[in-house]
Amino acid sequence: MLFRMTYTGIRVKDMEESLRFYTEILGMQVIEPLESTPTTEGKVVTLRSPSSTQLLELNWYAAGSRFGPAYSNGEDLDHLAFECDDLTDAVAELARRGIEVVFRLKEIGGWNEAFVKDPNGIWIELLQSRQKPTVPG
Amino acid sequence: MLFRMTYTGIRVKDMEESLRFYTEILGMQVIEPLESTPTTEGKVVTLRSPSSTQLLELNWYAAGSRFGPAYSNGEDLDHLAFECDDLTDAVAELARRGIEVVFRLKEIGGWNEAFVKDPNGIWIELLQSRQKPTVPG
Repeated sequence: MLFRMTYTGIRVKDMEESLRFYTEILGMQVIEPLESTPTTEGKVVTLRSPSSTQLLELNWYAAGSRFGPAYSNGEDLDHLAFECDDLTDAVAELARRGIEVVFRLKEIGGWNEAFVKDPNGIWIELLQSRQKPTVPG
Repeated sequence: MLFRMTYTGIRVKDMEESLRFYTEILGMQVIEPLESTPTTEGKVVTLRSPSSTQLLELNWYAAGSRFGPAYSNGEDLDHLAFECDDLTDAVAELARRGIEVVFRLKEIGGWNEAFVKDPNGIWIELLQSRQKPTVPG
C-alpha cells in the first residue's frame, strides 16, 4: 500500500486570529477556502506560501466538539519551518508587529535561524541560508 | 518580507522506532540523511513520500537537552494527513502490523477517512478520495 503525505493539520484556538497570522504576517495564501465541517463541529482552511508546495491546514473546533478537548501545547509538534531572505529584517519586522520572539539568532549548519511563536504558542522556525551573505541589520 | 513554508518538524520519542514507522509502514523516503545536531543534543532526519512534495522532519533530543522537555501529546498538532488508494485495505494492513487504529472509516466531504496513531501518539489521518469507487473489503 502506497501512502502519500498530503498536508500538516494544526489546531488553532481562534480561527480569525490564526488566519490573520499565517496570511497577513507570514504571507500564506488560502488554497482551499474556510469552510464549516459539521461532522467535527469545526472550521477548516488550507494555506500555502507563495513559491512553496507545503500545505498547512488550520483546524478549529467549537467548544463541546468531541474533536476539541482543552487546548494544550505539546511536544509532538516540534516546529513549523519557514525560509526567508533576510532573517535579521524578518525578526525585526515580526517583533514590531507584536509577535513573540523566542530565540533571536542562532547558527545551525549552513543556516541562520530564529524562533517565534504563532498565536497558539506553536514554535515557528525562521531560516535563512548562509549561502547568501547577510548584511547585519 | 516573504516567508516560505519549508517543512513540518515533529518531535519523536525514539528515532529508530519512528523512522521505521514513517519509512517501512508509511513508505516515506529519506531525503536528508539522519544526522546528529550538537547544538540541540539531538538527531534529525527529513522524509518525503514518493510522489509527494510535503517534507516531514523527525527531531529527537537526548535526555537533558534543553530542547527536550518531558514528551507530551498536545492539541496544537491536530494531525498529519496521508492519502492512499484503498482505505479499507490500508487500515487492515496497518492494524495487522500492530498500528493502533483510532477511527475506522468515516466520510467527510468527498473523502473516506480513518485515523491511526504513530509511535509517538500523533494522529495520522488516512484519506481516500471518493471520486474513485471503492470495492468494500
